[in-house]
Amino acid sequence: MDFTEIIGLLAGTCVTISVIPQILKVWKTKKVREISLRTFSILTFGIFVWIVYGVLKKDFPIIITNSISLFLNLIMVYFLLYYEKEK
Amino acid sequence: MDFTEIIGLLAGTCVTISVIPQILKVWKTKKVREISLRTFSILTFGIFVWIVYGVLKKDFPIIITNSISLFLNLIMVYFLLYYEKEK
Repeated sequence: MDFTEIIGLLAGTCVTISVIPQILKVWKTKKVREISLRTFSILTFGIFVWIVYGVLKKDFPIIITNSISLFLNLIMVYFLLYYEKEK
Repeated sequence: MDFTEIIGLLAGTCVTISVIPQILKVWKTKKVREISLRTFSILTFGIFVWIVYGVLKKDFPIIITNSISLFLNLIMVYFLLYYEKEK
């Protein structure tokens, strides 16, 4: 793995894991009123389209990192819908 | 531009613009307590590293889309710090 690949992996890892603190915060507080459902919906759709792009280009790093992102952001969207209803 | 490039552009555009509704929501409500500063800090750092990756690979679409993302997410981080202090 060369330097550029390591940089790409670092970038992808940061962006992928970044949603985790927000998921944990919502999970603890159960509060979602200030968080934009639209933001996380558009983001989740965009990540899904990245996976399609990865499949078309047969680019496995894109498929794998975005699949993890999709999974995490689907949890986030589910929480937003679930706790919005609860309040 | 072929089909795959259009898909990539669609994905990049969705992910880039997704933060805008959250920025507008914070701007209107001035409330940021439920939003994770850690999430947006890690995301902003990750986007910056994507730009470095784009520069190393001389990949202009990566540089351009991530530069717009970086700009938008820096606004978001600024809002989180600013309104956190205000409350």
